[in-house]
Amino acid sequence: MDNVFVHPHALAESETIGSGTRIWAFAHVMKGAQIGAKCNICDHAFVESGAVLGNGVTIKNGVSVWNGVTLEDEVFLGPNVALTNDMIPRSHQLEEGPSNFELVPTRICHGASVGANATIVCGVTIGEYAMVGAGAVVTRDVPAYTLVAGVPARPMGLVCRCGCRMADADISECGTCGRRYVRDDSGWSVQGETGHRDV
Amino acid sequence: MDNVFVHPHALAESETIGSGTRIWAFAHVMKGAQIGAKCNICDHAFVESGAVLGNGVTIKNGVSVWNGVTLEDEVFLGPNVALTNDMIPRSHQLEEGPSNFELVPTRICHGASVGANATIVCGVTIGEYAMVGAGAVVTRDVPAYTLVAGVPARPMGLVCRCGCRMADADISECGTCGRRYVRDDSGWSVQGETGHRDV
Amino acid sequence: MDNVFVHPHALAESETIGSGTRIWAFAHVMKGAQIGAKCNICDHAFVESGAVLGNGVTIKNGVSVWNGVTLEDEVFLGPNVALTNDMIPRSHQLEEGPSNFELVPTRICHGASVGANATIVCGVTIGEYAMVGAGAVVTRDVPAYTLVAGVPARPMGLVCRCGCRMADADISECGTCGRRYVRDDSGWSVQGETGHRDV
Repeated sequence: MDNVFVHPHALAESETIGSGTRIWAFAHVMKGAQIGAKCNICDHAFVESGAVLGNGVTIKNGVSVWNGVTLEDEVFLGPNVALTNDMIPRSHQLEEGPSNFELVPTRICHGASVGANATIVCGVTIGEYAMVGAGAVVTRDVPAYTLVAGVPARPMGLVCRCGCRMADADISECGTCGRRYVRDDSGWSVQGETGHRDV
Repeated sequence: MDNVFVHPHALAESETIGSGTRIWAFAHVMKGAQIGAKCNICDHAFVESGAVLGNGVTIKNGVSVWNGVTLEDEVFLGPNVALTNDMIPRSHQLEEGPSNFELVPTRICHGASVGANATIVCGVTIGEYAMVGAGAVVTRDVPAYTLVAGVPARPMGLVCRCGCRMADADISECGTCGRRYVRDDSGWSVQGETGHRDV
Repeated sequence: MDNVFVHPHALAESETIGSGTRIWAFAHVMKGAQIGAKCNICDHAFVESGAVLGNGVTIKNGVSVWNGVTLEDEVFLGPNVALTNDMIPRSHQLEEGPSNFELVPTRICHGASVGANATIVCGVTIGEYAMVGAGAVVTRDVPAYTLVAGVPARPMGLVCRCGCRMADADISECGTCGRRYVRDDSGWSVQGETGHRDV
């Protein structure tokens, strides 16, 4: 854990935190959380044992990342985004015997962004460089390079890796950065790149 | 306050906290809050003076429970759930004289669950074992054993005490746990139990 | 900074905090934030360098106020309200060279209130004494004295400075406090006051 910044009022209990990562005031990273390099974990964030963060992940204030959640490289979670890992939440504090809690995983893929205060119901995969609008409630998978918004979240169009909107045609070019995208049976990819990223 | 766990970075100022309750990092339970036994009050939660929690209540990260809110036994509040106690919020910091703040109570009944990032507008009662979907905005009462979702939240069906969906017929049986429910003028109850619970 | 209350578990790094302001547990006010007098900054709130708060502002628990956000006098932000300052959020932690982050400002005008868990997409102005319903997602400007709600937020009627609903006619009188409002080309104002407030 060389070159990790931990604010004097943060709690960083994990032994797996990559170089260049910063953890800010009143944030809490539990033992057993796996954190990549160059992440930015902001004030009042929480990362539970078993959560997995790649490199360059940004978690803004007030976000909790649970066991069962995987955030690939360069994912962005806006302030107060809510994740979950239980489809049937009940408080079982008074019962004897084994809990019927069943962990349901969530994956947010390379470069995807989740807007402020959005809610991600567990069990979904959010594709690479997808963008979830502020305040949306995601209840099903989001394809790569797709913008979703609303409650429940629905597809609203195509977004470039740089974040700009594009026309949703079979071949699409970003008016801002010039990247060209092609669509095949597995979805969108950048023209000239060999398939989807391995992460 | 025997057998209460208070994380070294939590603030537990109440003198009424039941046995077996746990209060986690950066949580703040104010003096005058009433907390039952075996509760789980997670990181960055807040419980105000005057709030009442029964036994076995789970409050996930980032939830604030205000004066005027009653959470009965085994209630579950997911991460970043927002409660309120004022129908007409205005900042009155600059005015002289008495505030026109009027406390509006909220009750969440035995065993009910509120999904992540849902919002509960004050003045409502959420019936026993009801379930509020993630990201919903509750603006009116929710009957017992009823699932609600959306903005504003609307009834979506019937849920068992165990959390599973059931057909919404006059007599309904849970396909998972086998409990049978009957509907009468006062709503749903488990067949063979004598009326609704006293809490 | 006479007469400023800072809770022993808060971090108040700004040198510009007005008299009578209170900052509560686990809140963090950064150096370079500008805070007026008689503000109330509640538990787990965050105020970033560059944010500007007038006098008598109330920020409830779990709210983060970013650089680029201006809150005029007596603004109220309910618990877990989410603000933003970036229309195209991407995590750029792994890239070399200059970020393409572009700050987009937000202004919330004198006396306006934002309900619990609402989301304010950056770039908007919320007019004076407007009211945003709990859980709403604001994506465009809100006129003065207007109630908005829903996802995305839409106008639902007229509210008085005292917070009560009024009929949406060319001249409207509050049934509670008796203030009379008139509408002209620039919107609503209180009859007899000379134009809009300077803040």
